[in-house]
Amino acid sequence: MAHSIPKIDPKLDLVLERIVDVPPELVWASWTQPEHLMKWFTPVPWKTVECEIDLRPGGTFRTVMQSPEGQNFPNEGCYLEVVENVRLVWTSALLPGFRPRKSKSTCGPDEVSAFTAFILLEPSGPGGQGTKYTAVVIHSDEEGRAAHEKMGFHEGWGTALDQLVVAAKKMKK
Amino acid sequence: MAHSIPKIDPKLDLVLERIVDVPPELVWASWTQPEHLMKWFTPVPWKTVECEIDLRPGGTFRTVMQSPEGQNFPNEGCYLEVVENVRLVWTSALLPGFRPRKSKSTCGPDEVSAFTAFILLEPSGPGGQGTKYTAVVIHSDEEGRAAHEKMGFHEGWGTALDQLVVAAKKMKK
Repeated sequence: MAHSIPKIDPKLDLVLERIVDVPPELVWASWTQPEHLMKWFTPVPWKTVECEIDLRPGGTFRTVMQSPEGQNFPNEGCYLEVVENVRLVWTSALLPGFRPRKSKSTCGPDEVSAFTAFILLEPSGPGGQGTKYTAVVIHSDEEGRAAHEKMGFHEGWGTALDQLVVAAKKMKK
Repeated sequence: MAHSIPKIDPKLDLVLERIVDVPPELVWASWTQPEHLMKWFTPVPWKTVECEIDLRPGGTFRTVMQSPEGQNFPNEGCYLEVVENVRLVWTSALLPGFRPRKSKSTCGPDEVSAFTAFILLEPSGPGGQGTKYTAVVIHSDEEGRAAHEKMGFHEGWGTALDQLVVAAKKMKK
């Protein structure tokens, strides 16, 4: 099976690339085990209050984010590719079991555009104790990309990654 | 990896189940090799005039169907699961590379609802020379299922399967 980096289209896609000083195995655990994911997934003061993971193609990836005011925002998608410590792909365009998601408000301005996310991990640094971390989020159109960027993709995903590293270092001990 | 039969929701899903007298290997070849697929995929007098297959999760499944009047209808989706001779899953909700499809005419009545299709094959009969063939097509809502059924799902997919069997028997020789 080919596990190539997705072809990036700068008009449609968002990319976050960083070197972090925890190994791929801990980054993988942080993304794939609910008890770990809930510690870092949402930039404070937001919280992730629920997380359900069925780690296989077609399996559910469900989270509930909570705003500082206590409002809950559920998200549900499905995994597409699961290659331990290397590659995790999921999409919001399909529900668990690969069922196409029903568009919520297809004529209104409020709909969040569907996306597919790739988390790509490579060992980095002396002894592979760090990780080259690449997050790629692809959209169907420029509006979807722009909306996602405006929501704070780079700050949000970057801050969450900082939180992941802090939590992963505690996991090690 | 679990390859379970998808959970069927009769309100949202369409199912065609048949025993055919060609083995799973030939049914698989019929579905996964363009030169074979083009022979049976569209009930005559329609034709399949183009077919492109990149047989891996995320790979393209593209066909162009042609009406008796010569009008072309292109379709493009992406494979989700590829288990040789056993299980082929693709969706119209994602383009190749898992990119979410842009809704065409989200406010109009013309949009064909996205679907995910499962082709499930099991050896059947003496010496496994036949195949238990199950096609499951799942939708996001009842309207999508109803529209697909009204387009002639059972006749269309059933007739195409008859054509597949005829073509596969010629393949054997």
